[in-house]
Amino acid sequence: MYLRAMQELLIQTGTRESRIVLGDTLANLSNYLPVGKKVVVITDENLNKYYGHFFNQFPVVVLPTGEKNKVLSTIDYIFSEFIRIEVDRSWFVLGVGGGIVSDVTGFAASIYMRGLNFGFVSTSLLSQVDASVGGKNGVNFQGYKNMVGVFAQPDFVLCDISLFKTLPPLEYISGFAEIIKAAAIKDRGLFAYLEDNVTLALDMDPSVLEHLVTRSVAIKAEVVTMDEREKGERKKLNFGHTFAHAIEKITQISHGEAVAIGMVLATNASVKMGLLDSKEAERITTLISAYTLPVILPMACSGLLEYMRKDKKREGDVLHLVLLNQIGNAVIHPVSLEKLEKIVYDLC
Amino acid sequence: MYLRAMQELLIQTGTRESRIVLGDTLANLSNYLPVGKKVVVITDENLNKYYGHFFNQFPVVVLPTGEKNKVLSTIDYIFSEFIRIEVDRSWFVLGVGGGIVSDVTGFAASIYMRGLNFGFVSTSLLSQVDASVGGKNGVNFQGYKNMVGVFAQPDFVLCDISLFKTLPPLEYISGFAEIIKAAAIKDRGLFAYLEDNVTLALDMDPSVLEHLVTRSVAIKAEVVTMDEREKGERKKLNFGHTFAHAIEKITQISHGEAVAIGMVLATNASVKMGLLDSKEAERITTLISAYTLPVILPMACSGLLEYMRKDKKREGDVLHLVLLNQIGNAVIHPVSLEKLEKIVYDLC
Repeated sequence: MYLRAMQELLIQTGTRESRIVLGDTLANLSNYLPVGKKVVVITDENLNKYYGHFFNQFPVVVLPTGEKNKVLSTIDYIFSEFIRIEVDRSWFVLGVGGGIVSDVTGFAASIYMRGLNFGFVSTSLLSQVDASVGGKNGVNFQGYKNMVGVFAQPDFVLCDISLFKTLPPLEYISGFAEIIKAAAIKDRGLFAYLEDNVTLALDMDPSVLEHLVTRSVAIKAEVVTMDEREKGERKKLNFGHTFAHAIEKITQISHGEAVAIGMVLATNASVKMGLLDSKEAERITTLISAYTLPVILPMACSGLLEYMRKDKKREGDVLHLVLLNQIGNAVIHPVSLEKLEKIVYDLC
Repeated sequence: MYLRAMQELLIQTGTRESRIVLGDTLANLSNYLPVGKKVVVITDENLNKYYGHFFNQFPVVVLPTGEKNKVLSTIDYIFSEFIRIEVDRSWFVLGVGGGIVSDVTGFAASIYMRGLNFGFVSTSLLSQVDASVGGKNGVNFQGYKNMVGVFAQPDFVLCDISLFKTLPPLEYISGFAEIIKAAAIKDRGLFAYLEDNVTLALDMDPSVLEHLVTRSVAIKAEVVTMDEREKGERKKLNFGHTFAHAIEKITQISHGEAVAIGMVLATNASVKMGLLDSKEAERITTLISAYTLPVILPMACSGLLEYMRKDKKREGDVLHLVLLNQIGNAVIHPVSLEKLEKIVYDLC
C-alpha cells in the first residue's frame, strides 16, 4: 500500500502567497476553500461528468473540452454565466481541471470586476507540473498561444494525482514533457530518476508520480518566487517552448508533444552552438522517446520561422532562446531572428 | 495672455510610479515617450482627424467613437491590429483620447502578452479629472459599466487643456460633474471656487481650467496613492456613482450627466439619513444646475434597484454607499440592499 504524504510548497511574489498542495485529494476540497465566501466553479464537461459530485453544491460553469476553447469568446461566456449567477467581488472562483481550465479560470477571475480571488484543483499531470502553478494565465489569440493574459497567483493549487486515471492516455503522457523539461534545465538527479523509472511512471505508480510531481513543482515554485514576471530566470522554463508554440500553431499536435519536439530542437541547437556535448543531447532525445513522446518535426522547417517571429518572448529583433550547457543547467541566449533562421535550417 | 505653468503630480503604488503632467501640450509629446522603444497609438476617429498629425509618425489604431465601443470586441479588434503591426513586448502603447480611449487602451495594453507599458494623452475634461488618472481600466459587459478590467498604472498622463476646444459641448460640460464630485467629497475650498467661477469655467478660461484640473487631479492622485485597490478611502471617489451606473445602464444619458443626477440622489440620501444639513444639500444641487448639468432622475425609480444589485461594488448583500456629512467630507456607509430599496423609494 502507498501512503500519501501531504506536502505544501509556497510561491511568494510581492505581497501574495500561493500554496501548492501535494498529496491530498479532491474529496478534501472544503479544507482549502476560504471560509464564509460564496464559491463558483469553472470546469469542463469531462471532469464535471466524473467528479461533479465533489463540487456540485456550488454553481458550476461548464466549458467544452479542447484547446480551441482557450479563446476570448470563452471568457465572454464565463462572464455571462457570472452575471446570471450574480457573482460579485465577494466570491471565490475555483477552477477544477487541467491546463486549459486553469489558464481560462485564472484569467477570467483576474479581470472580472478587476479581480476576484481564485484557486485550482489541478487534475492533469501536465497542469500540475506546469500550467496551474506559477500565476501565468490567459487565452490564445488567432492561434498564437497565450497572447492575452495577466500574471496573477491563485490562492492555492490542489494537486491530486488520483485524478489521472480518467485522463486520456495521450494527455497523461504529455505531462512528462514538462517534467523532462524541469529536469533538463534544473535537476540532473531528477533526470536520472526519470531514466530509471520509465515503466513505473508510465504505469502511474503513485510513489514515483508523487516524487516526479513534487520535484517538478518545487523547481517551478523556486523559479517563480525568484522571478514572477519573467525578467530573467523564469525564461529558462521556456526551454523548447519557442519552437513548441510555433509547432502548435501550425500542426494539430498537443502542447506536450510540441514541447517534446521543441526540446529536441533546442537541444540540437545547443550542440550546434558548441554549448552541449552530443552525448548529453542523445540522453535527452532517448529519454523523450522512452516516454513515448515524439522527437521528429512533423512539418517542413520553413513554416516554423514565420510563427516564431510572432512569439511573445520576442523583443524587437531578438529572441531569447533557452539552451543547455549540460543536463540540469540551462542558459539564456539572445539570438537575432537572422541567426535563428540559419539554426532552424541547419536542424532540418 | 495666460502663461502656462507646467506641473507634475506623482501617483505611487507599490513599485510603480505614474506621472501626471499638467500645463504642457500634445505638441511636446516626444518629451514623454520612452527613449528607444517602438510606439503604437490608440485613438478615436475624431481625435485622429483633428490631432493625427501630432502622432502619425507611429502606427495608429483608430477606434470608432462612443461608449458602445467600450466592449470586449473592441479589445479583440485592437489585438488583431497589434498582431498585424507586429507589436511585441518591447513596444510602448500610447492612448490619445478621452475616457473611453484610456479605459480601453489601458486594459488592452495590460493583457496583451501579459502586459505592455502604456501612457495617455488625456484629451477631454472628464478624462483628465477622472478616467485617465488612477489606473482603473476596462470595458463594459452586457451594459454593466466597467465589469471587466484590471488595475494598472500608466507610465504618464499628459493633460492638455487646449484640446478641449474640439470637444462637443455636452462632453465638455460632463467633466464638471467629476470636478464637483472631487470638491464635494474632499475640498470645501474647491467647491467655493467652483461656485465663484461658473461663467469663466464654462467659457474655458485657461487659468480657471488649470486650477480646476490641477486640484481635481491632486485629490485623485492623493486618494489613489493611499488606496489603489479601493479597499477603503478610494471608495469615496464613487460618490454618486452607484446611482449613476444604474442610470447609465437604463437610459442613454452620458456618464457626466448620470453622475450629476447620482450625486443629487446621494446628497438627498445623506440628508435623509441625518448626516447632512439640508442647506449644504441645496448648495450642491444649485452648483450642479449652475454647470448646466441635470438634477432630476429621467426615469422611474423602480428601474434603479434591479441594476444597483449588480453594481460591482456590491459585496454580498451589502452596498457601500458614499454619503456626505458636509461639503468637503465624505463617509462610507454600508447599506443593506433592503434599506437601499427603502431609501430609493423615499427619494422618488
